Amino acid sequence: MSHRFSAPVILPCDAACSVIRDGVVDVEGGRVTYCGPAADAPVSNAPVTALTGLVVPGLVNAHAHSPMTLLRGMGGDLPLLRWLNEVIWPAEARLRAEDVRVGMLLGSLEMLRNGITTSAEMYFHAEEMAEAVLTTGGRVVLGGPIIDLPGLDWKSMIASTERWIDADGLRFGPGERVELSFAAHSAYMLPPEALRMTAESAAARGALVQIHVAEAANEDTGQRAEFGSVPRLLDQVGLLDGRVVAAHAIHLSDEDIALFATRGVGVAHCPGSNAKLASGFARLTDLRAASVPVGLGTDGPASNDDLDLWEEIRLSALFARLSTRDATAIGASDALLLATRGGAAALGRDDLGSLEAGRWADFVHIETDDPAFAAGLAVPDEQLLANLVWAAGSRTVRDVWVAGEQVVAGGESRHVDRAKVQTAARESAARLRA
Amino acid sequence: MSHRFSAPVILPCDAACSVIRDGVVDVEGGRVTYCGPAADAPVSNAPVTALTGLVVPGLVNAHAHSPMTLLRGMGGDLPLLRWLNEVIWPAEARLRAEDVRVGMLLGSLEMLRNGITTSAEMYFHAEEMAEAVLTTGGRVVLGGPIIDLPGLDWKSMIASTERWIDADGLRFGPGERVELSFAAHSAYMLPPEALRMTAESAAARGALVQIHVAEAANEDTGQRAEFGSVPRLLDQVGLLDGRVVAAHAIHLSDEDIALFATRGVGVAHCPGSNAKLASGFARLTDLRAASVPVGLGTDGPASNDDLDLWEEIRLSALFARLSTRDATAIGASDALLLATRGGAAALGRDDLGSLEAGRWADFVHIETDDPAFAAGLAVPDEQLLANLVWAAGSRTVRDVWVAGEQVVAGGESRHVDRAKVQTAARESAARLRA
Repeated sequence: MSHRFSAPVILPCDAACSVIRDGVVDVEGGRVTYCGPAADAPVSNAPVTALTGLVVPGLVNAHAHSPMTLLRGMGGDLPLLRWLNEVIWPAEARLRAEDVRVGMLLGSLEMLRNGITTSAEMYFHAEEMAEAVLTTGGRVVLGGPIIDLPGLDWKSMIASTERWIDADGLRFGPGERVELSFAAHSAYMLPPEALRMTAESAAARGALVQIHVAEAANEDTGQRAEFGSVPRLLDQVGLLDGRVVAAHAIHLSDEDIALFATRGVGVAHCPGSNAKLASGFARLTDLRAASVPVGLGTDGPASNDDLDLWEEIRLSALFARLSTRDATAIGASDALLLATRGGAAALGRDDLGSLEAGRWADFVHIETDDPAFAAGLAVPDEQLLANLVWAAGSRTVRDVWVAGEQVVAGGESRHVDRAKVQTAARESAARLRA
Repeated sequence: MSHRFSAPVILPCDAACSVIRDGVVDVEGGRVTYCGPAADAPVSNAPVTALTGLVVPGLVNAHAHSPMTLLRGMGGDLPLLRWLNEVIWPAEARLRAEDVRVGMLLGSLEMLRNGITTSAEMYFHAEEMAEAVLTTGGRVVLGGPIIDLPGLDWKSMIASTERWIDADGLRFGPGERVELSFAAHSAYMLPPEALRMTAESAAARGALVQIHVAEAANEDTGQRAEFGSVPRLLDQVGLLDGRVVAAHAIHLSDEDIALFATRGVGVAHCPGSNAKLASGFARLTDLRAASVPVGLGTDGPASNDDLDLWEEIRLSALFARLSTRDATAIGASDALLLATRGGAAALGRDDLGSLEAGRWADFVHIETDDPAFAAGLAVPDEQLLANLVWAAGSRTVRDVWVAGEQVVAGGESRHVDRAKVQTAARESAARLRA
């Protein structure tokens, strides 16, 4: 069943960040078959949906712990260690599978409403998360955390991911909406042996490994003393040989960046989280110069608090400009590409993140009848891009499609009753606080 | 005519950033007569409006050039000097009074929709700006720019502001919605004599002086060489003796900050603009430690591109945390106060910026039936504040009152047809581009 979508402006987020005027997107079997000017489109008898605003690919949130919507803002501005010890960990100790399902439902609704169609997730009760995302119609790359803590056994955590992949396959659901991955917490929360076993198990299955790398300056002093740097440790245990996305990746040396580039390691840059926790500036311009695939992540909503990747788009450019003292360091189109094709590349997914033939038809319709687009659409390309990136953002997201299926219409989910989810979330949150 | 507003949560933005549960705001003659718990409220027969969300004071945008909505995003990411020379100045040379009226109408609508009830403005055709704000029902502190450029005569610019104040008074309009001020561009665009004359003329009238101070590192090398610093120059010409708000104020020494504190100079901190143009980090925590009154500004929407002070609230905290490497440097309540009572204090207005008896009843009703408030309102105060500041923001602004009069209902102006203003803005923008 094929369908054509037309729009006055389409940003396919190809490598050049083209701006297509009077464009169409043709969709068949949930994938894009053509995206380009209407004048050059193939002859088609497919039904046409005429959109009036601007079309962009669904954003890719390359690092999140979205069920933490339930813990949003808990503890306020407590310092990190007190916040974890006194607030977050006690609350998480009360988490049930049902809470995770509700938290992920709310997070997924919120992301879709903000134009995020894919998120990479690491959290407990991953099966509930998959179910929630299949309910909202979003897309997810997820794994239950592998972590070495009292009462938790990393070997059984690895085995549990293995069993799931071996049972259901690496990708499943309509439009392959769920991709399973290994979510190794970090080098400082796992022994090298666990990292090596994760790497081998993931490689054998072609699976992605998600891992936190070099976030806080003081978190991995032992590992750095022994191996020189966390990337070198990860390389020694073979974890950089397969598909891997390093979240945060702030405190990297030139050698670490070169190693990431050589091994094709993706980076999930989380500027908002890194600023809020005072973790530091990631070396975005250096990572890009080295051709490391970089995407953007919100991190978990307990600490960074909305699931709004448009805000991260702006922060990525602002921080790169501040840290390099160069107002041209990252432009609007660069930042937009980070959140779309960059995120897909960081996750090792060449079937997401842009509107090109063969990729999944995940896209967003932006309302342009808004003060953000004060001069209208008949303006030079660079002005349209500036209006979209610097002024429009999540509140202008109107409609969203995943694998060609409309999941958000007029800012609301077509599949889930937001009011009911919010009520359930409040009940879960009250119990976690108790 | 008195009126009572009730709400489950009211943040009056008093000095302690109190959180009032089950509160009321009593309004008479456009001013607050009581704000506090319903249980302690005076007996009243006034009609009651029961609000269901959260009430905060209207935000104060302490530095803007809002008619530049018409130029939003023009030139994209060109470097500053090329952007000014090739794009902005040629467009501004085509500006007519009618364009400014339309640009300010759009900017004022946008600000009100974002919960900003007052803005401090510096732009050409100031009379049109006043008219536009009186039309939307917002509040403004404004002045036509005083600047030394070929073809412009700063003496006649000062005289023109003097004539206006002498004719209409310092404040006029229903609810004293318009305050006139002197808007001296900067020490590097005006000779010391012009600054001295501005200072004297403003002091004689009790008027505020708005001025750009120490924004780009290289803009005022001559002045710094001759006087030591721009604040010292301003002090020598007497400009710091009266009411003055210094916009940006990035490159300040410890002595400059001490001078500002001694003279009671207000600062309009513009974190978004300063990052986007790579101007640097203002010394927010040092300014606060010295008790300098600090507010937040969006700057002009041609360069920083939306008029969203909620974003500046977040950026102020993020940048303070990054630049001090301290995640507790600025908390949610600190940042909220900057945008409310801080902005009022920076503008020398003790009748705005908080919901306290005697102040103008400028306030905002926030929709809390939103994922931003995932755990609901029955949470600890610090969590509510975190939800409001870090997750809610402009998209949750539902209703707005200025001087007790409702000007925004359900996110839309009650006085002006947004579609018509947008159409007019597109026409103006097209002509400015031509």
